[in-house]
Amino acid sequence: MIIVLNPHATKEQVALFKNTLEEKYGVTVNTWVGVESTVLGLIGDTTQIGEDWVSAQEVVESVKRVQEPYKKVNRKFHPDNTVIELPTGQKIGDGSLCIMAGPCSVESEEQINYVAQRVKDAGAAFLRGGAFKPRTSPYSFQGLKAEGLDLLKGARKVTGLPIVTEIMRVNHIDMFESVDIIQVGARNMQNFELLKELGKTDKPILLKRGLANTIEEWLMSAEYIMAGGNDKVILCERGIRTYETATRNTLDLSAIPIVKKRSHLPVIVDPSHATGKSSLVEQMSLAAVAAGADGLMIEVHNDPKHALSDGAQSLTPDKFDEVARKVFALKKAYDEIMNS
Amino acid sequence: MIIVLNPHATKEQVALFKNTLEEKYGVTVNTWVGVESTVLGLIGDTTQIGEDWVSAQEVVESVKRVQEPYKKVNRKFHPDNTVIELPTGQKIGDGSLCIMAGPCSVESEEQINYVAQRVKDAGAAFLRGGAFKPRTSPYSFQGLKAEGLDLLKGARKVTGLPIVTEIMRVNHIDMFESVDIIQVGARNMQNFELLKELGKTDKPILLKRGLANTIEEWLMSAEYIMAGGNDKVILCERGIRTYETATRNTLDLSAIPIVKKRSHLPVIVDPSHATGKSSLVEQMSLAAVAAGADGLMIEVHNDPKHALSDGAQSLTPDKFDEVARKVFALKKAYDEIMNS
Amino acid sequence: MIIVLNPHATKEQVALFKNTLEEKYGVTVNTWVGVESTVLGLIGDTTQIGEDWVSAQEVVESVKRVQEPYKKVNRKFHPDNTVIELPTGQKIGDGSLCIMAGPCSVESEEQINYVAQRVKDAGAAFLRGGAFKPRTSPYSFQGLKAEGLDLLKGARKVTGLPIVTEIMRVNHIDMFESVDIIQVGARNMQNFELLKELGKTDKPILLKRGLANTIEEWLMSAEYIMAGGNDKVILCERGIRTYETATRNTLDLSAIPIVKKRSHLPVIVDPSHATGKSSLVEQMSLAAVAAGADGLMIEVHNDPKHALSDGAQSLTPDKFDEVARKVFALKKAYDEIMNS
Amino acid sequence: MIIVLNPHATKEQVALFKNTLEEKYGVTVNTWVGVESTVLGLIGDTTQIGEDWVSAQEVVESVKRVQEPYKKVNRKFHPDNTVIELPTGQKIGDGSLCIMAGPCSVESEEQINYVAQRVKDAGAAFLRGGAFKPRTSPYSFQGLKAEGLDLLKGARKVTGLPIVTEIMRVNHIDMFESVDIIQVGARNMQNFELLKELGKTDKPILLKRGLANTIEEWLMSAEYIMAGGNDKVILCERGIRTYETATRNTLDLSAIPIVKKRSHLPVIVDPSHATGKSSLVEQMSLAAVAAGADGLMIEVHNDPKHALSDGAQSLTPDKFDEVARKVFALKKAYDEIMNS
Repeated sequence: MIIVLNPHATKEQVALFKNTLEEKYGVTVNTWVGVESTVLGLIGDTTQIGEDWVSAQEVVESVKRVQEPYKKVNRKFHPDNTVIELPTGQKIGDGSLCIMAGPCSVESEEQINYVAQRVKDAGAAFLRGGAFKPRTSPYSFQGLKAEGLDLLKGARKVTGLPIVTEIMRVNHIDMFESVDIIQVGARNMQNFELLKELGKTDKPILLKRGLANTIEEWLMSAEYIMAGGNDKVILCERGIRTYETATRNTLDLSAIPIVKKRSHLPVIVDPSHATGKSSLVEQMSLAAVAAGADGLMIEVHNDPKHALSDGAQSLTPDKFDEVARKVFALKKAYDEIMNS
Repeated sequence: MIIVLNPHATKEQVALFKNTLEEKYGVTVNTWVGVESTVLGLIGDTTQIGEDWVSAQEVVESVKRVQEPYKKVNRKFHPDNTVIELPTGQKIGDGSLCIMAGPCSVESEEQINYVAQRVKDAGAAFLRGGAFKPRTSPYSFQGLKAEGLDLLKGARKVTGLPIVTEIMRVNHIDMFESVDIIQVGARNMQNFELLKELGKTDKPILLKRGLANTIEEWLMSAEYIMAGGNDKVILCERGIRTYETATRNTLDLSAIPIVKKRSHLPVIVDPSHATGKSSLVEQMSLAAVAAGADGLMIEVHNDPKHALSDGAQSLTPDKFDEVARKVFALKKAYDEIMNS
Repeated sequence: MIIVLNPHATKEQVALFKNTLEEKYGVTVNTWVGVESTVLGLIGDTTQIGEDWVSAQEVVESVKRVQEPYKKVNRKFHPDNTVIELPTGQKIGDGSLCIMAGPCSVESEEQINYVAQRVKDAGAAFLRGGAFKPRTSPYSFQGLKAEGLDLLKGARKVTGLPIVTEIMRVNHIDMFESVDIIQVGARNMQNFELLKELGKTDKPILLKRGLANTIEEWLMSAEYIMAGGNDKVILCERGIRTYETATRNTLDLSAIPIVKKRSHLPVIVDPSHATGKSSLVEQMSLAAVAAGADGLMIEVHNDPKHALSDGAQSLTPDKFDEVARKVFALKKAYDEIMNS
Repeated sequence: MIIVLNPHATKEQVALFKNTLEEKYGVTVNTWVGVESTVLGLIGDTTQIGEDWVSAQEVVESVKRVQEPYKKVNRKFHPDNTVIELPTGQKIGDGSLCIMAGPCSVESEEQINYVAQRVKDAGAAFLRGGAFKPRTSPYSFQGLKAEGLDLLKGARKVTGLPIVTEIMRVNHIDMFESVDIIQVGARNMQNFELLKELGKTDKPILLKRGLANTIEEWLMSAEYIMAGGNDKVILCERGIRTYETATRNTLDLSAIPIVKKRSHLPVIVDPSHATGKSSLVEQMSLAAVAAGADGLMIEVHNDPKHALSDGAQSLTPDKFDEVARKVFALKKAYDEIMNS
């Protein structure tokens, strides 16, 4: 951490401030005296020193963090890619393309079993489906809840596909014991109490990026889970909120190579929620593969026109067949090109 | 709700779609046939019809909601201002200016009692202070938790000021039984499970605007609380996330008159978190009063340089004296001008 | 255009308003009377009716445009892709991948000739280079200006590559007569006076998206050029401004399929300016190809460390060789997949 | 400027880099060697050293500017407020509240003379009105152009009010010779060629903030004008583009105290364009006064419903009377409070 001191700071103030830094945080402070300003360089573990606190000091003009504020998530301290492997053998982050597909909401046994079989046949490795649904309006359909979870488990039994579904509150963690991957939605990315509790489980956690969160904040939320002892975090880019109204959110594909550089965690892309339009899913899925994503999460509904939520962004099973065929073909070409 | 149909839709498709709308949602559908396109007008309660679902229909080109999606929050159905009155007599929304002040985090008995007395003397009607703190980093100070709540209650006993503090998880609601106003932070504005549970209490809820949420989404989150049976909602504007980096967030003061027009709920402003800079708090507090705010939430710390969180934005008690004096004086002038 | 009337509007007001619409704009107005509100449907050419003007009417509650406000740019009225062909044979928009490459600023004859030869050898079809540079600071290098143009022409003579360079003011149009493609930068996307004058030329115009402009505004700026009589417009996505600070701008690749659907114009991507980081250019170039872009604009500098502007985002010629090889290989695979 | 070096940089690379900095830019470079990283501190005038260029160096990990990149605009080098005084005596920035009012577009002699007289009677010091109009659509009314300028001059003759109007291209500067204050619109804030030419005139320039520009970029654009020799710059905040759709733009009132701290230039607020809604103008005008603005720019139209542009945000003359009365009264109270 580099701290530029206020040119009006007195020697006594500076000495007091340095002393505080060294005693309170156990860092070593080096001083560099320039003509216009004095700069402090902190050596040691600065992850616990808040930039807000530093900025509040009267002697401080500005502060710059050199070290990243995350540790366990950081590729610097963990150079190899994290590969998440399920007991049933599926892997995420091993260089293959992992597709998670299924309806936004679980609606009936017939629906979920049908969709599960179709996405399995098309090459999906996971079934995704919402049992508990975060909805902007209290009057909208909120999911089948526990019954939805049971239907997902039924579809898993029938097809063998492990299941991914979203959790919305801490006291549901027990109920999610039999879920294969627990999803934390964008609106809960900074629900720190939930992250802490999930850090105590040993379930893989799919952490969606918040719709107005920076990549650094996203990695810090992953750090919450890992700090609790759970190393199995999968990041999921799903679009950020911008002024553009042609899409529901703006898919930030540059997040993929940035996350890959800063962290060892796998990162996948959800083009369905990012764009909000089924007509854009194919093209954005292909782009995500070419940007280096480890996987895709795609909404598929047997009958998008009658879906109880988010129908506008769902593919039909037939359209999903086509998208899956194309993305796997592009992934194959991409791997050959990158490894040649 | 106005639905513009796809010019390529067949008569059969349109008939089927209209039938679905009428049967599934109990609305009456009027048809207007133009030369280029056909438009449907829905009459009845459309709050349960998702625009996403409508957009997903093949026969639909676009959709426009005429009715607001919120009901209990809506001024149309509740023309008079909601005034929230505490058992101890304090009122919010009655035309007076309500100031809530105190430290970001409760740190010690001495600190909180001292600050409580100082803000009371300056005219604050409520003591605010964080016991449970949402922090981006798992390594940052997370608040004194239950001990912090006890210290707040102690300060209330000493000064008589009712207390406002933030809740972060559903199973803390019992613990917050003795809190006077429960705050829902910006990051939890769309933690719908928490909102639902708070809707079942009879505590006043201070609902902060999410840092990337529209005014409509904010009102929908208030609707969640009211739909549960709790009418006592206070809205709090605290800045939105934009590209500008000179302030932590961009304070959106135009939200005040917009909320006042659309809703009957009181709305206050938090200039401390919005700007992240203590040097801007005075000017933004005055501007908030002139924009018509019902109150202000201001961070005051006995010693901002040693605050354990968010020191950069806290005022000293002396500076708060000055700010409070100015805002009350401006409020007086404002009322005279607006009522003359 | 669909106009929802204010429920409090009187019959006389409505009649007067309808009359105004019909007489002033020559449209036919259909009325649909619902229980809660009355809706007007306008038939005819509504591109000249401003939504602002409609909204200002006391009788109006809200307005929704059904027709897009652009005509010549609109794919509806021009279903086939526009292919821009230069006298020297290069084509943009014909299904091939067109790469424009070169330094941010032209700096010397040696530099530009060297880079031109290197990018040509790697497969670029155009040489790009800045002679007039828009710079945030008046104290930054503003380009070699007329001398820079001469150096570009010299490099064209040596290599045969047509040249693309940015214009910054109307009275330079004559000077740009010998330029092959005239670029309008992001900051000038809504410099309507410049667009109008370029509409009177017959030069291909490369129109960059403004850093805070919607896709609709971008298409409207293209409409300005086409309305003047110049059909040769190439759109260039180069990132939009968001709250994220990990990249200079956020590259919006979903703009590619959206523009392709709404318009017949070719669209290319500039990953160098979008991300501001050379380390992201390869991955984002590949993603742009997979998103369906007609071309790429990439910064290449013989010596990025000594570049007089924007060095951080430039590739070396050696790195560009590699990127070009990969993107052409991916484009080949992409075409096979999409056409199979 | 503080530069953190890459820990992998060799001694030779560092020596070469330091040498380049000293020779190329004439700064003195101090080195501070820490355990984990080496930091360079640059002393001297760094305004010409681009951060992009520094970041591009292989030896550089990151860079932090300590000095602001603007000089003439900077309050540090010009502590007193700039007061702009017209030959006819009007002052901006002297502590008084300066109101500029008038229609978005000049439409007819009758209209402009009527509105001019009404706004003068209500206390406005300047008549604003558009002769050349920047419009998103080429098919929208583009202003009366030269005829509009003549009508403005006529209204000035009749009422004595000096006039403010927008310029859109360099070669109109002669035509604007008789205009009292030349306005640069938001879309042209970074039309650097126009700024340079205006810097050669001695006219007061009203520089609107670009709709996606930071405060620093805005000040840099003012620096362009001042660098050319013209010290008479008035800044105008008019809302920035965000994701919120309830207002046209989000008015950033915190920009007022920030600009006041960083610069000596006067700053005014345009609530009409910022919100796009006449119903918000009064409240946001009052808030702007309380935020410390030196003036207001307000749209007034004799007949907003028939205005040829931007009617939705215009006040009637009667409503303007009321708004002006209130803002002057609030300004009086504000001055008493701030000076007591």
